[in-house]
Amino acid sequence: MNKEIKKNLKIVKKTLEEARLYGHAASVLNFDRLTACPKKAREAQGDTCAMLTNQAFQLGKEKKFVRAFTYLYENRGDLDKYDQVLARSLYRNYQRTKKITPKMDHEFTLIENKAYVDWLDAKDAADYALFAPSLQAVRDVEMKRISLQKDKKDPPYNSLLDLYERGMSETMLDEAFGECKERMIPFLEKIKASGRQIRTDFLGRTAPVEAQARLAQYLLNLIGYDFDRGALSTTEHPFMDDLAVDDVRVTTHYYENNLVSSMFSVLHEGGHALFGQNTPRAHYKHFIDGEKTLGMHESVSRFYENRIGRSRAFIELTFDKIKELFPELTRDVSPEEFYEAVNLVTPSLIRIEADEFTYTFHIIIRYEMEKEIINHGAKIEDLPKMWDDKYEEYLGVRPSNAREGILQDVHWSDGFGYFPTYALGNMYNAMYYNKMREKYDIDRLIRDGNLDVIRDWMTKHVFKKADRLDAAEWIRDITGRDFTPKDYLDYLEEKFGAIYGL
Amino acid sequence: MNKEIKKNLKIVKKTLEEARLYGHAASVLNFDRLTACPKKAREAQGDTCAMLTNQAFQLGKEKKFVRAFTYLYENRGDLDKYDQVLARSLYRNYQRTKKITPKMDHEFTLIENKAYVDWLDAKDAADYALFAPSLQAVRDVEMKRISLQKDKKDPPYNSLLDLYERGMSETMLDEAFGECKERMIPFLEKIKASGRQIRTDFLGRTAPVEAQARLAQYLLNLIGYDFDRGALSTTEHPFMDDLAVDDVRVTTHYYENNLVSSMFSVLHEGGHALFGQNTPRAHYKHFIDGEKTLGMHESVSRFYENRIGRSRAFIELTFDKIKELFPELTRDVSPEEFYEAVNLVTPSLIRIEADEFTYTFHIIIRYEMEKEIINHGAKIEDLPKMWDDKYEEYLGVRPSNAREGILQDVHWSDGFGYFPTYALGNMYNAMYYNKMREKYDIDRLIRDGNLDVIRDWMTKHVFKKADRLDAAEWIRDITGRDFTPKDYLDYLEEKFGAIYGL
Repeated sequence: MNKEIKKNLKIVKKTLEEARLYGHAASVLNFDRLTACPKKAREAQGDTCAMLTNQAFQLGKEKKFVRAFTYLYENRGDLDKYDQVLARSLYRNYQRTKKITPKMDHEFTLIENKAYVDWLDAKDAADYALFAPSLQAVRDVEMKRISLQKDKKDPPYNSLLDLYERGMSETMLDEAFGECKERMIPFLEKIKASGRQIRTDFLGRTAPVEAQARLAQYLLNLIGYDFDRGALSTTEHPFMDDLAVDDVRVTTHYYENNLVSSMFSVLHEGGHALFGQNTPRAHYKHFIDGEKTLGMHESVSRFYENRIGRSRAFIELTFDKIKELFPELTRDVSPEEFYEAVNLVTPSLIRIEADEFTYTFHIIIRYEMEKEIINHGAKIEDLPKMWDDKYEEYLGVRPSNAREGILQDVHWSDGFGYFPTYALGNMYNAMYYNKMREKYDIDRLIRDGNLDVIRDWMTKHVFKKADRLDAAEWIRDITGRDFTPKDYLDYLEEKFGAIYGL
Repeated sequence: MNKEIKKNLKIVKKTLEEARLYGHAASVLNFDRLTACPKKAREAQGDTCAMLTNQAFQLGKEKKFVRAFTYLYENRGDLDKYDQVLARSLYRNYQRTKKITPKMDHEFTLIENKAYVDWLDAKDAADYALFAPSLQAVRDVEMKRISLQKDKKDPPYNSLLDLYERGMSETMLDEAFGECKERMIPFLEKIKASGRQIRTDFLGRTAPVEAQARLAQYLLNLIGYDFDRGALSTTEHPFMDDLAVDDVRVTTHYYENNLVSSMFSVLHEGGHALFGQNTPRAHYKHFIDGEKTLGMHESVSRFYENRIGRSRAFIELTFDKIKELFPELTRDVSPEEFYEAVNLVTPSLIRIEADEFTYTFHIIIRYEMEKEIINHGAKIEDLPKMWDDKYEEYLGVRPSNAREGILQDVHWSDGFGYFPTYALGNMYNAMYYNKMREKYDIDRLIRDGNLDVIRDWMTKHVFKKADRLDAAEWIRDITGRDFTPKDYLDYLEEKFGAIYGL
């Protein structure tokens, strides 16, 4: 490594080290704000957090730093495999945000903060009009951000997709979702027509919060989560947060009359956390641990939530524990009944409560609307009707108000382009599940409680290169095949065909 | 207010505003480190916290800032009552730390951090030799700090007392503790000789953690703690933390076989928290909310823990709830038996487990040793024997190892002069309890559950001027009398005389 490279690497890493401390502090404040922080202190804590984030943003604008990583990017052929990724990432990010001043960035943040508050109020009142002006402002911010990028993409929505899922484009998504619609719409009709009755009455029975907390601990231990480097907290909306290399936390929410809500949210966030805990330490050292895409991340969380968690083998493995913790709830329930109940297919209005099969329709609806919003300047006041019509078209249900319609998700108060990653995650994990199956009888591993073997396979194949590759390269690296929704659709048809006797 | 004053006030408050953000962030990180943070992430989180603290320390050294508050101090006659306090505080602090560079401060911090780790190891191994070198280093730091002060005090220990309890001196403490010994030593002999048997068997029975958590909630609500501006978390060692004006948190620790441990720690920390939550908002605005002394703070926490919490009236008020939550534990226990059990006097080795009566002896022992350590250069290797001898002299018990002797408390890994504030707190609150009694039948208020009336009296008389006055002025302002241990000693003799039939 020549002297100039060495010198510039040193400059870059010194700044990133400093920025990381601010980022770490901001993460802890944010985590605390969503868990332990009292209601009336949250706003002030948000302000302190914003100050810390702004310090990190300013560090990233220092001329010496920009010059250094630009040099590295231009000479990336001389860097090791990690620093190449770092140089590319810094350079890409710089192209995207170069023309955004700290002041503008701060203004954007304020608009998004206000949109969040307006969204809360609007959802509470089920009144879209309370949110519409902010939604307009958020779209304006997105369009402004896109217009300020150096390498503009066409159509503009591709810029947003690329932000969350490096290399992803409308063309690829149109094709994937097209296949989904082609196979899933008629299949859903068959399910509806099957007349199969699935018992779910017991899921609404009382499940003491204490016992749910014990189940959560048990499940996280089972999938191989390391509590010495993590923690389980409660919060309003479950999330995973990787605050530091040895600090990857999971949160959940316990509802006394909804056992499966926390059970599967713990598996979902626990999946995210396994990804964080088993990211190579070298990636932290080289400041590239945050390069994995959202689609990759969702693939892992949904793998643990659905492919593992909602499998018959997993229910059989855990049912004794569930019976022990919830004797009343399970008093007249067989493992098979429990398995079927957590896999009931039923078209519904709320995405986060959707079953595994209909979930993709919720994403398709949002994806189609985001394209209208970003590419075609859809009128903000027309969106609720567009939403309701699409629900009627795809799922045969129509919201009776905006709370169970367009106001249900927080995401659009913050921007657009996030939703497709959820659906991509399902498709990715179906592909690597099939790859894993070449080596292991996965159901057997699950039944024997050998979840550590699965985690280790994931570490070796799925987690290892995620930070270094674009999504398309990554899935090819794992499976030897190009991205396709086929494995996912085959899986759905096989699983739900069996349950519904099709 | 003249222009020059205005200008300098603006400079001072701008810097303090900025420093407060760093301080706020550091507080949250510290709180999180002691509650939610995973074991293996604590060290890194400590480093980030140190960076934030250092940022605040550096701000305090800026020339412009120093010039501005010095000007204010010199013209304090022209300031309002709040800014006078602020100017005096900044100036006093500056006199104390002027010659300490950020680098030295950092070195001191490292020594204290190491001492903390060594203390943990030494306590764990019950091996004083593992801690002795660090204890020596901590004393050297203290002596160095004292020698660098502008207005040196004589003897040097007075500098430390003044740091934690503005205006307090050895002369005053020698006198107060002298009276204590004179009356309490013979009284303790009488208690021992009384032959009175008090039943405590039931205190060791199982008390489910869930029920203890409910009791903690109940108790905090009862004394008037505001959960919208606070929170209750669990931690290894209970503490109160005021992170921001609307964020005053309490922590506790639940032991399944020790109900009273969490019960009284919650009342103790809850007392601290009431002080924080009912500090005038103007004090936050004027950056003087942290001026209250430790003795004042301990007076309030011990007021709620002992004067309220361990009173017969309070046990009678809460006993139904305790029975409801712990039916097994209380199955054969009367309120009177519970009252006596939590007031058993028994000379023992561990300060934090000591009863209300013998507690002061634990403090006197530490106070006498601190004087030897700071004023008379006692040899570090001689301290364990000195400790054991004093326990034998005052309490008639002798530690069998250093863990239950000199290594039991964390404090000396951080410095000296803190302990006396615990005893002062008891004496202060005995004085203002008697003042409150002129207006209210306090036992009646408690029996009727009117704890809010007590909190409001405390707010008006005890909390209101605490930040603005030295301890001696403050207790005179509340009670119209000079500081004296007499009220406290009278109270002890009356209460325990009744229990032990003396």
